[in-house]
Amino acid sequence: MMKALILFGHGARDARWREPFDRLHSLWKAQHPDVMVELAFLELMEPSLEEAVTSLAGLGADQITVVPVFFGQGGHLRNDYPVLLEQCKAKFPQLELNTTSAVGESLAVLQAIVDFGASSL
Amino acid sequence: MMKALILFGHGARDARWREPFDRLHSLWKAQHPDVMVELAFLELMEPSLEEAVTSLAGLGADQITVVPVFFGQGGHLRNDYPVLLEQCKAKFPQLELNTTSAVGESLAVLQAIVDFGASSL
Repeated sequence: MMKALILFGHGARDARWREPFDRLHSLWKAQHPDVMVELAFLELMEPSLEEAVTSLAGLGADQITVVPVFFGQGGHLRNDYPVLLEQCKAKFPQLELNTTSAVGESLAVLQAIVDFGASSL
Repeated sequence: MMKALILFGHGARDARWREPFDRLHSLWKAQHPDVMVELAFLELMEPSLEEAVTSLAGLGADQITVVPVFFGQGGHLRNDYPVLLEQCKAKFPQLELNTTSAVGESLAVLQAIVDFGASSL
């Protein structure tokens, strides 16, 4: 079983918007070198979710977990994202493709934001 | 000096999108009851940044720190947000109005996201 992770963000027109995503990517690679990782974006940036899945499958991944790096679960995550996931599952039926909830559902992430605010006062 | 915090998010059409923001709001109030806190949104949700500043100023705040709850610093934070901040400063010249960087610039926030992904494998 070769595991892989996809950090899935919204995307934006401004290339500098992705800097925290590149940092996440680097942190993951440094801390979890045994689990392949790719970024993917819903729109305006590349690669798409399907491109990232294709790339990881080509590298031998057979179990991929997608982490939506979004705060809230609005229309993008409730409507667009499940369709994209299903398309990937249909294209790679041999893959085990899972998703977590949005990172904004993680209490530890929210606590880190609260602590960041408190340290800035 | 009466300090206050504004957690400033993007906003979305789907009301459920704001759930993590409401949770942040609750966490802050429970952990920092001495520092008033308000949510504010760039678009699609209320209150606006100016409305939140007005509300906190009306409650006696004279030093307000705005925390942009965004991952990346794209066009919204680089272009729209400084204009909104300046409008608030012009409207309330007696206020000390500060901003932090986006929470996506916080290494602790990014680490919490990495740990969330690792715990989900």
